[in-house]
Amino acid sequence: MCELLGMSANVPTDICFSFCGLLERGGRTGPHRDGWGITFYEGKGCRSFKDPLPSCDSEIAKLVKSYPIKSCSVISHIRQANRGKVSLENTHPFIREMWGRHWTYAHNGQLSNYKDKLQSDIFQPVGNTDSEMAFCWIMDNIKKKYPNRPKDMKPVFRYVAKLAASLRELGVFNMLLSDGIYLMTYCTTKLHWITRRAPFGKATLIDTDWVIDFQQETTPNDVVSVIATEPLTGDETWQNMTQGEYVLFKKGEPILKGVK
Amino acid sequence: MCELLGMSANVPTDICFSFCGLLERGGRTGPHRDGWGITFYEGKGCRSFKDPLPSCDSEIAKLVKSYPIKSCSVISHIRQANRGKVSLENTHPFIREMWGRHWTYAHNGQLSNYKDKLQSDIFQPVGNTDSEMAFCWIMDNIKKKYPNRPKDMKPVFRYVAKLAASLRELGVFNMLLSDGIYLMTYCTTKLHWITRRAPFGKATLIDTDWVIDFQQETTPNDVVSVIATEPLTGDETWQNMTQGEYVLFKKGEPILKGVK
Repeated sequence: MCELLGMSANVPTDICFSFCGLLERGGRTGPHRDGWGITFYEGKGCRSFKDPLPSCDSEIAKLVKSYPIKSCSVISHIRQANRGKVSLENTHPFIREMWGRHWTYAHNGQLSNYKDKLQSDIFQPVGNTDSEMAFCWIMDNIKKKYPNRPKDMKPVFRYVAKLAASLRELGVFNMLLSDGIYLMTYCTTKLHWITRRAPFGKATLIDTDWVIDFQQETTPNDVVSVIATEPLTGDETWQNMTQGEYVLFKKGEPILKGVK
Repeated sequence: MCELLGMSANVPTDICFSFCGLLERGGRTGPHRDGWGITFYEGKGCRSFKDPLPSCDSEIAKLVKSYPIKSCSVISHIRQANRGKVSLENTHPFIREMWGRHWTYAHNGQLSNYKDKLQSDIFQPVGNTDSEMAFCWIMDNIKKKYPNRPKDMKPVFRYVAKLAASLRELGVFNMLLSDGIYLMTYCTTKLHWITRRAPFGKATLIDTDWVIDFQQETTPNDVVSVIATEPLTGDETWQNMTQGEYVLFKKGEPILKGVK
């Protein structure tokens, strides 16, 4: 199993606090020693940092922790390999361009008997994980149903939830997917989220003893949602997603929810 | 104008020496203050570092300089913006997946009256540079002519040279393109390359006073080609490419040359 972390915000926000909590699970407080990755959107562009090394030992992770990149949309993943060897090409998040935007995806879980069912042609996997195959299959299906980007994106994400539901039949499929504007989450076993807005309070990371006072770091109009496999803080109330549940975020707000 | 840097090698090789020379041109010895990027292949995977900040001031560039990532195929670019604003989405190299491999591209030059001629549909630009439009157009044409990856890749790169020659009619088009195995170069105005092999000697960077003794850094079987807009060292003989010339590298060796 792996751990996921996502963020959606209405103003460029520093994810260092949450990312530091996640990284501790990469070999120190958690068993996820098989690489990590994070993608930050800045406008339409995005930048990724990835390493097949455990996150708690990674030089690149140290840079990301010390260098406060601000973003409105972030996807991160730390990996405990089950399908596919430990290598850069198998390290999440995976990215593909569709409709002139970069789409970023990370998966937690494991699929079985998927190879015949998840063939794709427009988008093809580079590595050999079940996760990347599922991503290419989702993207292929979206592109075939919607050759051009629709103005109303909600039907696209309802369709993604339907696709995710059929992947759930093949195993465990917890997912984050973003085009930099929207952030889609789908849960089969474990995913939590929290939306922080004024009045902001203090929070303490579970995996280290870092306490943050969000009031010092924010303005009254900020809205920031954080999504994670397990809650990252011990003194806040996280929403627990249930089997088949999806939540779509935009500018920090949950804008669409449902169960498929 | 911008500056390009590429490397093709038969063993994973550290590009720090050449990259440091290039970075000096990013605002210190050269005028290229509008961002920089570098992509390293590791197996089928690749990692990119990019920054819209001048390379000589960039925290991320400092990490890349101090962290010796070894790779058999590298593409790097420092930018002086002409078409498209200074932003992350307009920062080279650009990457797309085709045939289950990541394709990386960087361009030096400027095109005119290109918008109608460079429409593409399979691959679409994310930013608004002439460079990325040309890349998507090249990839579109390759994918339409070769829906699947041919075993013999030389005809593909001869076709790329033909496409590049038609881009040359729209302006200046110096290009680097790689799928991690092959590295293709096309010149219209300025591009130089050198192949280093045993017996290795010493070399001095033009842009700083760094001297390297390659014999200390290599084994007798290493073959490494470096491609750059302008020679990076002053005491070696670089090959000067001419208008319409292309050279294809694989495992450090130039394996195909021609003029289109």
